[in-house]
Amino acid sequence: MDKPYAIGVDVGGTNTVVGIVDKRGQILINGSIKTAKHTEVENYLDELTKLIDELISKITTKDQIKGIGAGTPNGNYFTGSIEFAPNLPWKGVIPFAQMLEDRTGIPVALTNDANAAAIGEMTYGAARGMKDFIVITLGTGVGSGIVVNGQMVYGNDGFAGELGHTIVRRENGRVCGCGRHGCLEAYASATGLARTAREILEKRPDAKTILRDIPAEEITSKDVFDAAMEGDEIAKEIFEYTGKILGESFADFVAFSSPEAIILFGGLSKAGDLIMDPIRKSMEENLLPIFQNKVKLLFSELKESDAAVLGASALGWEVR
Amino acid sequence: MDKPYAIGVDVGGTNTVVGIVDKRGQILINGSIKTAKHTEVENYLDELTKLIDELISKITTKDQIKGIGAGTPNGNYFTGSIEFAPNLPWKGVIPFAQMLEDRTGIPVALTNDANAAAIGEMTYGAARGMKDFIVITLGTGVGSGIVVNGQMVYGNDGFAGELGHTIVRRENGRVCGCGRHGCLEAYASATGLARTAREILEKRPDAKTILRDIPAEEITSKDVFDAAMEGDEIAKEIFEYTGKILGESFADFVAFSSPEAIILFGGLSKAGDLIMDPIRKSMEENLLPIFQNKVKLLFSELKESDAAVLGASALGWEVR
Repeated sequence: MDKPYAIGVDVGGTNTVVGIVDKRGQILINGSIKTAKHTEVENYLDELTKLIDELISKITTKDQIKGIGAGTPNGNYFTGSIEFAPNLPWKGVIPFAQMLEDRTGIPVALTNDANAAAIGEMTYGAARGMKDFIVITLGTGVGSGIVVNGQMVYGNDGFAGELGHTIVRRENGRVCGCGRHGCLEAYASATGLARTAREILEKRPDAKTILRDIPAEEITSKDVFDAAMEGDEIAKEIFEYTGKILGESFADFVAFSSPEAIILFGGLSKAGDLIMDPIRKSMEENLLPIFQNKVKLLFSELKESDAAVLGASALGWEVR
Repeated sequence: MDKPYAIGVDVGGTNTVVGIVDKRGQILINGSIKTAKHTEVENYLDELTKLIDELISKITTKDQIKGIGAGTPNGNYFTGSIEFAPNLPWKGVIPFAQMLEDRTGIPVALTNDANAAAIGEMTYGAARGMKDFIVITLGTGVGSGIVVNGQMVYGNDGFAGELGHTIVRRENGRVCGCGRHGCLEAYASATGLARTAREILEKRPDAKTILRDIPAEEITSKDVFDAAMEGDEIAKEIFEYTGKILGESFADFVAFSSPEAIILFGGLSKAGDLIMDPIRKSMEENLLPIFQNKVKLLFSELKESDAAVLGASALGWEVR
């Protein structure tokens, strides 16, 4: 008989969240531990294993679990390792999947957060039934998970899908966290949008906006969203500029893999039509004619608070 | 028993070339007809069928042929149709695969020229044994065939892989044949390279170069190649500029699918290190650190004169 449950583990820099999920994408039980307090990965994994065992024992038995899927920063599907993750307390290459599998006795697969989101959308969300789509995660950074022919694109080394680090402004581009210039992430992440806000406020000292009530260095994407919802014209313009840049990049992504849909996931996607309308306009204006009016732009259908765990759990179904 | 032969059909605007190929990629016999003289596709297909039957009868029998693969301008693998090809005499949508199959009694698959090149490299050429690679065709235009997980990327509509029409110069970009601005093709095709030559000659009237012996409007990529081989510094600079732009684009392609290799195919690739050295330098300078010093840059290993037919024939093995 098919095993009815998978476990999702979302490893974040602060917290690690675990959920047991059924085939319809219902999270039956969940729990969390603090990632950051463990400077030794061994101690962290011991506590994580204890939590997993407890959650299982409350609703089922271990032999009913198909697999564990983990979404982690810098997670490599091929090696099962976390490789040089700047925001985690453990340095170098951590053979995370093997170490967790040794402790739990359950097979473990691992990938990065954005790929987990894409597998989640395909299994339970907006991409059900689709064979070709791209998930773009708009958070502190810009990530992506690409699916072609119904399969995740991992590439030759497991690191494919770094679309946040394709170049959208080749001349005088903003410095990106990766050290290069002009990356999409430097414009379209939540921090990129806040940076656009500061640039516009500085360049146009006469423009009236309620954003001036906030010290420039403290403006967040949430502040810009709130201002736009109150009808602030400058705040709307900031979203339009962000959407314009995303649409330009999306047109190039379409020329690559001609997806059925591009799905927005994560913080900035909560802005809804504020961000989607300018993306759609800009993407269509920039598409090669054969691709125009074909590509769906969608929002994630995974419930915000559960999305990361659901995405990770979806990988648990695929474990060998 | 496995059928030992496949047929490749390379449909060009002027000529159509047919070859019967064995599993090692040897062309055993070939022939050609004039594409351009047939304003009616029916007459064209009748003559093509006659040629195919003649070639088969000279070396084998029809039941020894696995399939026919055709590489055509604007060929759509999913529909088997040639769709609105500007350089062919037949307009609109031509159900080419079905029409040829009806006439020959042999199953026919069809794709565009660049995809056929990629399948050819995977079957007989530089990409044997690779699961993730990109072929870039540098000819009158810039085309591409992308392979992920060992499968051609056709995308949702069959038109994936238009990398010649990703934007490499977003501000003041050259007008492209597609009507948009800044496409890679406007810089890195043979015609784009000739355009670079004219721009440099005009912008720098004092620069000494043997290219001034040729009327500016008549300079071809071949002229620039010949001049560079004679040590002309301006000609070398033209190749360096072209390679720089290709390398910038390649770095973005790598961020998408993280291929094991990018393979150069077609006219401009004959320039060898003149074009490859600046591509390599520029690509490595522009890559995200995790991808540096990993991606192979290779030349096609399909013999120039046979490449198109071989590529098409490779699709013949895959026919259902």
